[in-house]
This record gives sequence, structure tokens and C-alpha cells, in this order.
Amino acid sequence: MAEIKLKGTPLSPGLSYGYAFTYTTIPFEQRNIVIKTEDIEKELSRLKEAIKKTRESLEKLKDRTKKKLGEEKAGIIEAHMLMLEDPMFIQEIENTIKEGHSAEDAVYTATMKIKKMFEDIPDPYLRERAADVEDVGSRLFRNLLGAKDLESMGREESTIVVASDLAPSELIAISGNNVVGLVLLHGGPTSHMAIIAKSLDLPAVSGIDISTISDNNVIIIDGTKGEVTINPSPETLSQVKRKVEELKKEQEEAMSLKDAPAITSDGFKLELWGNIAHPNEVSSVLSFGGKGIGLFRTEFLFMNRNNPPGEDEQFEAYSKALAEMNPNPVVIRTMDAGGDKEIPYLNIPKEDNPFLGYRAIRIGITEEGLLLTQLRALLRSATYGNLYIMFPMISSLWEVKRAKDLLRKAARQLKEEGIEQGSAKIGIMIEIPSAALMADELAKEVDFFSIGTNDLTQYTLAVDRGNAKISRWYDHLHPAVLKLIDMTAKAAKKHKIELGMCGEMAGDPLALPILIGMEFDELSMSPPAIPKIKRLTRKTSLGRAKEITQKALLMKDATEVRTFLEEMTSQL
Amino acid sequence: MAEIKLKGTPLSPGLSYGYAFTYTTIPFEQRNIVIKTEDIEKELSRLKEAIKKTRESLEKLKDRTKKKLGEEKAGIIEAHMLMLEDPMFIQEIENTIKEGHSAEDAVYTATMKIKKMFEDIPDPYLRERAADVEDVGSRLFRNLLGAKDLESMGREESTIVVASDLAPSELIAISGNNVVGLVLLHGGPTSHMAIIAKSLDLPAVSGIDISTISDNNVIIIDGTKGEVTINPSPETLSQVKRKVEELKKEQEEAMSLKDAPAITSDGFKLELWGNIAHPNEVSSVLSFGGKGIGLFRTEFLFMNRNNPPGEDEQFEAYSKALAEMNPNPVVIRTMDAGGDKEIPYLNIPKEDNPFLGYRAIRIGITEEGLLLTQLRALLRSATYGNLYIMFPMISSLWEVKRAKDLLRKAARQLKEEGIEQGSAKIGIMIEIPSAALMADELAKEVDFFSIGTNDLTQYTLAVDRGNAKISRWYDHLHPAVLKLIDMTAKAAKKHKIELGMCGEMAGDPLALPILIGMEFDELSMSPPAIPKIKRLTRKTSLGRAKEITQKALLMKDATEVRTFLEEMTSQL
Repeated sequence: MAEIKLKGTPLSPGLSYGYAFTYTTIPFEQRNIVIKTEDIEKELSRLKEAIKKTRESLEKLKDRTKKKLGEEKAGIIEAHMLMLEDPMFIQEIENTIKEGHSAEDAVYTATMKIKKMFEDIPDPYLRERAADVEDVGSRLFRNLLGAKDLESMGREESTIVVASDLAPSELIAISGNNVVGLVLLHGGPTSHMAIIAKSLDLPAVSGIDISTISDNNVIIIDGTKGEVTINPSPETLSQVKRKVEELKKEQEEAMSLKDAPAITSDGFKLELWGNIAHPNEVSSVLSFGGKGIGLFRTEFLFMNRNNPPGEDEQFEAYSKALAEMNPNPVVIRTMDAGGDKEIPYLNIPKEDNPFLGYRAIRIGITEEGLLLTQLRALLRSATYGNLYIMFPMISSLWEVKRAKDLLRKAARQLKEEGIEQGSAKIGIMIEIPSAALMADELAKEVDFFSIGTNDLTQYTLAVDRGNAKISRWYDHLHPAVLKLIDMTAKAAKKHKIELGMCGEMAGDPLALPILIGMEFDELSMSPPAIPKIKRLTRKTSLGRAKEITQKALLMKDATEVRTFLEEMTSQL
Repeated sequence: MAEIKLKGTPLSPGLSYGYAFTYTTIPFEQRNIVIKTEDIEKELSRLKEAIKKTRESLEKLKDRTKKKLGEEKAGIIEAHMLMLEDPMFIQEIENTIKEGHSAEDAVYTATMKIKKMFEDIPDPYLRERAADVEDVGSRLFRNLLGAKDLESMGREESTIVVASDLAPSELIAISGNNVVGLVLLHGGPTSHMAIIAKSLDLPAVSGIDISTISDNNVIIIDGTKGEVTINPSPETLSQVKRKVEELKKEQEEAMSLKDAPAITSDGFKLELWGNIAHPNEVSSVLSFGGKGIGLFRTEFLFMNRNNPPGEDEQFEAYSKALAEMNPNPVVIRTMDAGGDKEIPYLNIPKEDNPFLGYRAIRIGITEEGLLLTQLRALLRSATYGNLYIMFPMISSLWEVKRAKDLLRKAARQLKEEGIEQGSAKIGIMIEIPSAALMADELAKEVDFFSIGTNDLTQYTLAVDRGNAKISRWYDHLHPAVLKLIDMTAKAAKKHKIELGMCGEMAGDPLALPILIGMEFDELSMSPPAIPKIKRLTRKTSLGRAKEITQKALLMKDATEVRTFLEEMTSQL
């Protein structure tokens, strides 16, 4: 069979090769199949069989996880296994079958019922178990339907998973499974799935016509360029094998620099920090040599529940991260809900364009109570470490003033109540074009800027970053985006405030010379990207980076910039 | 009762006062009411009664329309009356009643069936009658339910319509009805409804809690500021009456300048053109003294049908407008579908954020056949007048090059086929921040720019212009928007290409000094706005406008700019 090369959308960078494993997502849903009384026993034994199979595959998954990702991650799987043994759960399923429902429907109903019970628990850590329940339930469901099981693959050879779409949880499940790449039909470059693929260091490409791929086809995947090769010729394959070896050596070299500073050959020092979405992830940032948290997303506290989190609950999450990172800084972003992150208790009506809608700081300064509680929790947690408070989605000066008023109010309240509080640096995300254009005014009001390149690119180019159909229009190296970043950088330097970046661009090796050239103080990225960016920083010089930046800023379009930067960085 | 002042969102400018008429929209939909055989006669006579009432109210509406808006608009009402007499339509309703359905359901079913038949007709003028059928059907429906009828108001006194929401067709229906203003709960400042209110010169405010208003309350509405006063004191009311008189005089003075040029006191000449969405509207532009069409939206050709329009059909629409306007220019924008304008035959999957999605030129250069046909029709029509071709939603240089390639291909094809064609100026909309930022490069490729301020504001500030919940964040006078307009203007001047504007801002009196200060060549707006803008232009000087512009560009936020410009223009 001839070699076929397909061009798709790069989701997660890296190069790998392996055998195709085609995977079909089965929707976990009510099927409304009523069974006859005489079939109840059959359904009960089908359930028993499925539980056994699910336990076996979880056992395999646990072993692999322990080997590859350590005890902590394996603990999650163990929790799933316990759930599978939970008599309340099993009895609930059995009773539903006895009422005359198929085993599949019984699993679905019982799962949803118990999930709902967990969701109603105020404690956030217990509440998170709702997701575990659903995970276990859907595994059982797949096994009942005799569908292929990702964990049961048990393959020794390297595997490329080929699927129409993958849920983030499915993606995490396969991470310990000899999977070396993902080829997908759907999914945008900044979807949650892509973010997880990056944090797993798993090359991934989307927008590929997967019907051209069969099980066990040999596949090469270039997640950096967004290319997929099916049935490569022996020459192509051996070329790629050599390249993969080289990259592996580079990564080892990078990891050996874990404790070295990110400093250019001519002495310009860059801070490399990590982005996290939960306090548990601080350890991952530290393990990759990150010297701070540049973006702590706080949405996990607000989502998947029926009431907003209380002040104490928030305080605990923030102070945990701050204490663990102390004395290094932790930039905590106030709630960035709305957009693609729905929060049921806010009762936001369905919007035609949620990315251009009522979200983030717009909610915060409209429904003040919510933001005030968060700011109180933040000020209290500040005594535990080095806190930076960051406001998202700023489009105008008045919003910054309003947010700062609220912060003062929170501080005044705590003082009057005699509650201990610490101090924090105050900053804003620059992620809306108007904020970049007004950076000179905004810089007078804050201690730091952090550029959110995903949103900034999306608004500057009017391209939804999650819409695969128009992903060719989305490129953070577009000269218009670079100009806005340059305006922001110049304003920060002029007013001597700290300049950071926490979007995808911060971890993009191609963009690095430009970010050094603009003299960023700090870049914050997905933790696994830190070593590579550090290695490249140490090979760059500030002088050369400035020349590259000046040239790139004068270019006509994104392709010209990209080609130029590929040439420049290949020389490192 | 005390005077109550409410603050809402300005939808359409102007000041007026009158008595409240509260209006409830009744959804036109299947109610699934089955009737008994013995009630069939009763339903048939209910239908007869409703037809009679509907005919009477249409008769009244026709008379008023003729008086206020002339024969042509009255013709539309006459068409509706004919439909009401159409035996096919009435028989269809009667037969459905005889099958055992309520008169309401029968009207609904028959209307939808006949509407569908019209929609399937290829001829666009016949196809438009589908909307007439629905209009007549829903009037009958309302009358059957005994609901208040807008046309039956028959009031001699000035009326302010108070409603939760109004469909564009309802709005047009009331325009001949002593209605002097609209107070609404829903609707954004750049919704279709607001655009129609503006073209009817009807002050309108949305975002008002209408439950505070009862029938026959005296209401003052300030559509410029977005203020509504309920039960004004005698002092307030007489103040407003004086102000309304003044404004009326100004408008008369403005209309007396119909044939005068729009020229500042120090000799700077501005072209004032009109925006249209159908060739029939050319006459309206001429009647208000417009000297060109600055935006001819071509979507009417592509929407509400099952197949794309053919080349000949498009050619006819374009050449009609060009011939009527000749030798004055007509700027025809290529298809701007997608976003909020759905086109069924393009099979665009439902998007999460259609305003940041697959639309306009993105469709045009992906599905080339569609744009190629339109460009062929445009080049053919160019022999009839002074054609400017304008490409929408440009975000990058490569798109302009691709579009120009397609235009050359169309010209080559026509030449090879021996079909006559004319020449056209080529331009682009500047409505995405990246286009404004790259204006210096883009200007090298085209003959003119036209700034679309609605989209430019929406993307620059990341605010959906149709989302009433966040309308306080939307302001085209935001200094960031002004900076992007200034960049665009400077690039146009540097490369000596024509500089125009066709968004809402072009008809905003507050913005005028800035647009003169930036030396725009042409402003295109809703036709009724032309006289007022001309009058103000003639009172302005270029020198003073330049000073105002320089000051505004250095301001910190939209409120500061707005206050400053209110002060500046009040002196005119």
C-alpha cells in the first residue's frame, strides 16, 4: 500500500510513530430498553460479567499508571476500583434491572443518580468524586456493549489512537497505555482536549479524515506541523525514527537543566512558570523546574455544582498552592466563567456568541458578591505565600478601577472583622485587543500584565479558537497579534511593571525569540513545556532575539513570520 | 403619580413623547387543539369574523401608509389584502378546520404549507411573497385570539409602543400608525429591529423593565441617551415639547439642504452615501440627498431559499442599482453570510460562536464557485454604472490576494466567453482588528477601504453587539476603536486610496468631528441620517475637527470621549 500524507490541524506538538488503534466513542446515555421478567437473571449475569471485565482492565490500567506516572495518579484509578466494589452503587444497578430495565439502562440510571448525590455535597473534594462515578459507570456501559476498551488494549507496541473525538477523561485514561499519538477528526487547537494532550506530551493532530485509516496501519504523526502519514515507506519511517531519537536526546538534555536558570547566552534572565487548574498540580510544575505559577485557573471551584463556593473553601485551595510554592509567586486569576465554561447557578441566559458575551470580570463587577468573596479568600490566603491577583477579560480602564475598588472593600471588611490578611500584587490579563491598544493607560493602574494569547488571537483575528473549520485563520504568530503584544510590552517597560504571558504562545518554541526580544519577565506554560523552553532560552542571545523581533514585526502575514521563525530557531 | 426615569440602552436616536400602548407578542405556532364535529361550523364562522376584522385593520393600515409613506409602501399592504382574499389560502384553512382542527391551528397549518410553496419558487421576487403569507397568517391568528391589533389602534394621539420584543415586520406594520417611539425589554443596539427603527426615524430604547408601564401612561423617550420617563411632571413635559419643536426645525433645515454639498466651513468636502439591502432602496437614498451607495448588502439574494442564486439573477439586481445611481458610485459587498445570517444550502454546521466563525470571505474563498459566480455577475453589471466591489471580513493579506485572483479568473472567463464586462474599483471592509493593524500592507493591494464599525467595535472590545446584557461594554467611541480607525485612515492617506465608513458610527453626529478630523472621503449611513449629518458637516471646520480628533485619541475611556464630544457638538 502506498504512503499517504494528510494535512490537518496541529493540536499538540511532537513527532512519533506506531500502529493505529481505531476507537469509537459510545455515547453514555439512556437507551430505554425494557426487558421481560424472564430475562432479568440474564441481565444480572451480564452485569456481573461486565463488572469483572471492568475490574480487570482497571487493574491493568492501575499497574501501568503506577509504572509510568507514579503512585499519586495510580491512586485515582484505585478510587475508581473502589467505586466499582461499592455495594450502594452495585445494588442500585441491580435493583433497577429487577424493575425490568436492561443492564445498560440500569447502569446509566444508577450512575446518574449517585453522581447527582455527590454533586450536592458541599465539600469540593468529595464533590469531585461525581466525575469518578460517571467514569466508572461509562466503563461498565462500554463493557456491557462489548465495545473496545482503551485500557484492555494491553499492547506492547507503540499505539496511535485514531478516533472521531475523545473526551478529556478518555484521553487521560489512555495516557499509561503505550499510546504515542492521537489522530482525530474533531477538536480545535486550544480545546481542553488539546491542552491535556500537551500536558501529557502526546503529539496530536485533528481535522483528519479518519475513514482512510484501518486498525494496525503504521502511522507517523507530526503534531508540530499537523501532518499524518499512513503506511510510510521504509525510507520515510527510518528517517522519522532517527528524528525521534534526536528529539528524545534533546528532551533528556533539557530535563538535565531542571535546576539551572533560564538565561540567555548574553545574560538576559527569563522566569519560566507553569499554568495550573488545581492546587494538586503545583507538584507537577516543580518537577519540571518551574519557579512559579503564572496562571492558577480558579474555575474548578465554581463549576459542576449548584451553589457558589464559600470563602473558606476557596481560602483553603489558594493557601495550599501558595504555601507549596512559597516563596515563589503564584498568579491567581479571579473567576473566568462564562464563555465555554458554564456555571449553572449564575443563570446566564444562553448566548449567541458566548466568547463575546457575559463572562469573567463582566460577571465579577456586575454580581459583586461573587467576586468580593473570592477577593476576601485571596487576601486571607496571601499570608501563606507570594500572591499575585489577576483580573481576566479587561477591555476598559473603568473595569480595572471597579475591580480595585472591590479589592479595597474586601481588605477593609477583613480589617474591620479582625481577620488576618496579606498583601498581593495586582495585575490584569491582556487578552482583548482594546486592552493591548490601551496598555499605556492600563499600566498606570497595575503591578503586572499577563498576556493571554489564546483569546487575544481569537479576538484580533475574529476566529473562534475552538472552531476546527476555520483553524487555518487562527495563528498567534500573525503580525497583527505580534503588534498588539509589542504595544503591551512597550507600555509595561515604560511604566516599569512586570510583563508576563500565560497563553499557548508562551510555550511555543517558535515564538520564543520574539518574546525574549520584547524582554518578557516571565512566561507561564503547560509544565512539560518548561524544560524545552529553558534549553532554547539558554541557546538564544538577547541581541539576536531583538533583531529577529524587529524583522518579524514588519512582516506581511502569519506564513511569512512562521517560515522566518522556523529558519531562525532551526539554527539553535 | 410621581415621575419615574428609567435608564436603558439607546436603540434609535431622537426625542419624542406620547401615550403608552402595551403590546404583547403572541407566538404564531401550532396549538394542537382538536375540536368536536358539532363545533366545526362555529370555527368556520370564527374564521369568517377574523378575516373581516383583519381586512378592516389592513384597510386602515393601507390608508395611513399611503398618507405617511407613499404609494409604494402602501402597495405591500395591498398585496397582503389580496392574499387574504386568495381562495386557495382560505380554502386550505377551511378544509383543515373541517378535518377537526381549531381555526387557529388551521390558519397556522395552511399558512406554513403555502409559505413553503412560495419558498420553493426559484424567482426571488415571487419567493419574497412567502414572508407576506406568514404576515397575513399571523394577523389572522392574532385576530382569532382576540389579541390587540397594532393597526386597529386607530389613535389620533401620539403613541409609544411598549413591548417585550418586536419582530422587524411588526415594527414596519406600526410605522404608519401615529407611533412616535418604542420602549422595549429586549433587543441590542445593532439588531435588525434597531436598524429598521433608525431607518423609520423612530426613537427607541431597550432594556427597560416594561412591567412598570401601564396603557395610556404618558411617556417621554430619549432614544439618543437611552432614557425613558414615565408620568413626567408638567415642567418636564413642556421642556421636552420645546426641545422636540427645536429638533423638528433642525430636521426641516437639514432637508432644505438636500441638494447642497456636504462641505465644512473651511472647504473640506465629504461624500455622504446611503446603505441599502435591496435595489429598491436606491430611491430612498436619492430622496434624502445621498450621492452614492456606500454599502449594498447582497445577502437578500442568498437567504430564504434552497439553492444559491444564479449569475443572471444577481446581474439583474446589481445592474438595476448601478443604472439608477449612475454616474454616482455603488459599493457592492460580496456575500456576507454566516454569523447571524444563516444560509441553509451552505450546510454550515451549528457554531458555538458564529460571529467568530465561518462567514463572509471565509466562505467565499473556501467554496470558490459561489464567489466566482457573484464576481462574474458583478463584472457584467459594471457596464451599467460606477461599480466598487468590496470584500467583507478580511483579516489577513492572503485573503485579499486570493479574492483578487478569483476576480481575475472571473474576468478571464467572461472574456473567453465573449461576454461584455465593465471595470470596478476593488476594496475591502476594515472590520476585524487585525485588518486595521495591517492597514499599511492591505492598502497596497486595493483602491479603497470601508470601515465597518459595528464588527470592528465588537471584536476590538470582545462584545457581541446583539447581546443586551453586556451593551454597556459596547461603544464605538471607545478610544481603542478610535485608534484602530486612525491607523486605517493614516494608511489610506499614505497610500492615497479612498477612505470610507459604512457602520453605525458613520451616521452618529457625535462621531462626525472625528471622522472629518481623520479626513474620511465618504461616510455611508441609513438614508434618513444623511440630512442631519450634512447639516452638521456644514457647521464644522476641518481645523477644529482635527483638534478634537487629536484630543479624543489621547483619552482614557469611552465615557471620557463621549462626554467630550457631547460638549463639542452641542456648540454646533
